[in-house]
Amino acid sequence: MPDTLSNRLRAYAEVAGQLDVDAVVLVPGPNFTRALGQSFMSHERPFLVVVPADKPPAALVPNLELGSWQSTGFEGAVFDWRDQTGYQDAFAGLLKHLNITSLAVEGQVMRVFVHHALKSAQPDLRIIDGEREISALRMIKTPQDVAALRKAVEISERALHRTLETIKLGQSEKQIEQMLVRMMFEEGADNLSFTPIVAAGENSARPHAHARHDYQVKAGDALLFDFGAKADGFTADITRTVFLDHVSDEARDVYDTVLRANLAGLDVTRAGVTAHEIDDVVTSVLEASPYADRIRTKTGHGLGREVHEAPYIMRGNQMALPAGTVYTNEPGLYELGNFGVRIEDDVLVTEDGYETLTRFPKELMVIPC
Amino acid sequence: MPDTLSNRLRAYAEVAGQLDVDAVVLVPGPNFTRALGQSFMSHERPFLVVVPADKPPAALVPNLELGSWQSTGFEGAVFDWRDQTGYQDAFAGLLKHLNITSLAVEGQVMRVFVHHALKSAQPDLRIIDGEREISALRMIKTPQDVAALRKAVEISERALHRTLETIKLGQSEKQIEQMLVRMMFEEGADNLSFTPIVAAGENSARPHAHARHDYQVKAGDALLFDFGAKADGFTADITRTVFLDHVSDEARDVYDTVLRANLAGLDVTRAGVTAHEIDDVVTSVLEASPYADRIRTKTGHGLGREVHEAPYIMRGNQMALPAGTVYTNEPGLYELGNFGVRIEDDVLVTEDGYETLTRFPKELMVIPC
Repeated sequence: MPDTLSNRLRAYAEVAGQLDVDAVVLVPGPNFTRALGQSFMSHERPFLVVVPADKPPAALVPNLELGSWQSTGFEGAVFDWRDQTGYQDAFAGLLKHLNITSLAVEGQVMRVFVHHALKSAQPDLRIIDGEREISALRMIKTPQDVAALRKAVEISERALHRTLETIKLGQSEKQIEQMLVRMMFEEGADNLSFTPIVAAGENSARPHAHARHDYQVKAGDALLFDFGAKADGFTADITRTVFLDHVSDEARDVYDTVLRANLAGLDVTRAGVTAHEIDDVVTSVLEASPYADRIRTKTGHGLGREVHEAPYIMRGNQMALPAGTVYTNEPGLYELGNFGVRIEDDVLVTEDGYETLTRFPKELMVIPC
Repeated sequence: MPDTLSNRLRAYAEVAGQLDVDAVVLVPGPNFTRALGQSFMSHERPFLVVVPADKPPAALVPNLELGSWQSTGFEGAVFDWRDQTGYQDAFAGLLKHLNITSLAVEGQVMRVFVHHALKSAQPDLRIIDGEREISALRMIKTPQDVAALRKAVEISERALHRTLETIKLGQSEKQIEQMLVRMMFEEGADNLSFTPIVAAGENSARPHAHARHDYQVKAGDALLFDFGAKADGFTADITRTVFLDHVSDEARDVYDTVLRANLAGLDVTRAGVTAHEIDDVVTSVLEASPYADRIRTKTGHGLGREVHEAPYIMRGNQMALPAGTVYTNEPGLYELGNFGVRIEDDVLVTEDGYETLTRFPKELMVIPC
């Protein structure tokens, strides 16, 4: 089936049918970009595409976006609205035109003010959270998607190699972070996947730490990098933990445990494995170690246009991963007040196994500095 | 009143009282960061602070964030949840503990899946959109906030000066954008406020254009830059439109019209002016010109931790701007298929007038290249 706007929209119409609602709504974000072939901003302005199960689609578009909108080739009805007059009439016109009674929305993307605008234009409208089913359409990556992810990962890894060459004891986490960011842009990043985590010493025990201006890295520190470049609309997400100058026996043992967990997860990866199975083997390695009380997170998440997307790699999620899924395998062990280790690969699921898009070495690395 | 966590939370408790609801809820985003003094990620994980009008606050925290959470000094009850077991029990525990019947949420920040989780834990809970009143607390910038904005603007302007020196005819919009981004990071940006708009020729007529790989800038093009660096948690947002090699009489006249509109808006700016009045004088200049049909947007928006925040500078918004407000004054004229011009300043409202944080020249600039 050719990758055209109308075919892509038809797939969302089928999701509406599956969910037994009259239509699916997309708002600016990854599904919207994928469907329309172009990204849009929303901010305080409601902007949405409604794809009914069995009628032509329609859109509600801020007037200032009409110029960009026309180049999407969208052929359905368009209800535009201007800042000066507000959006209530456009919502009323859209819903009257559609004549529907139920909608599935992207619960992780749509904000409450849009939900309220829909309900206030039509109070009896039934709105369900169709995030899982709607976003499932972008779980299987196309060859172009994989090429973009590969590019984003390569940029990120070149930046990390170059950054590690510049580290000196006494630098602040923030200085190291700024070097990493600069290197990513020099290497060709369009943007950052997210604000990087560059965390040393006890800060590495916080899974979502912020780089500190006032902490100078010192010999023996664990130094955790969790970061990624964005390229062609896709996001890399890679973590490596290195040690500065030397490494303690405890840290070496923790590192080895995390690496074994990561490898165990890769080992069971192939088309058809469930998210549950991957997390179970990974987490079991950690649980069987002396560090079971340092487990804080699931194994990982899908990766694509968003840094966190389906499938979520966790026990209880019985979703089978088809070939073409990309997920992060990122076990970690974190002891608050001491240190943390995380190793994260971006993994492409294939028919008979996997390919790690991340190629940065995972052997324990002690940085002379 | 000292700027402590408990005083900041008390201000949100007062908003709950004003809105006649039992509590205000904050989710990760600008208000959350301001209240807690630290930024957090949310992604697929619900994370919220509930501030009741007349009881101690409570929080629902993903377990992996507990390490970072402890350093906020939050003293209320905490209901944490783990990926492995899900968040339903934490929502139920939180709401049972609070014993409330109504909530105000940040409609522009909270996503529908959190709204659904609240409603599913307590179906009779009344949830209203308190975005305006909640976010109003960060409308008046502190001296520290202004210092951060000033820094972000200065970084951005140095980057634009350096970028303009490198422009050559035949470069793509994307190449120019990459140079601008690189310069922002070299100048000290922590991040980008948003993906920059670098749009030449007819692309400049799209208010939210994307830089193109396949368009080479040519003599006579309008070249519009709308961009900003992020520093210390605050975002710059500046637009300048320059012309390459030469400028047509029409473009010169359009530019002059937009500049007069921008200056008219500055001229009425002082503490107590309403958002309506600013937009009205700015838009009236555009409407009185021969280019009235090229108007596509309101005058601007507040600026701070978010690129778009209250107050929205538009007719009909009778909010009076107190001293300490920062807003964007960004009139533009856009003719689809031809070209667009926008000039955007970041403006600090003072008791007796204003200060433009942006200092980049606004005289029509023709770049020799």
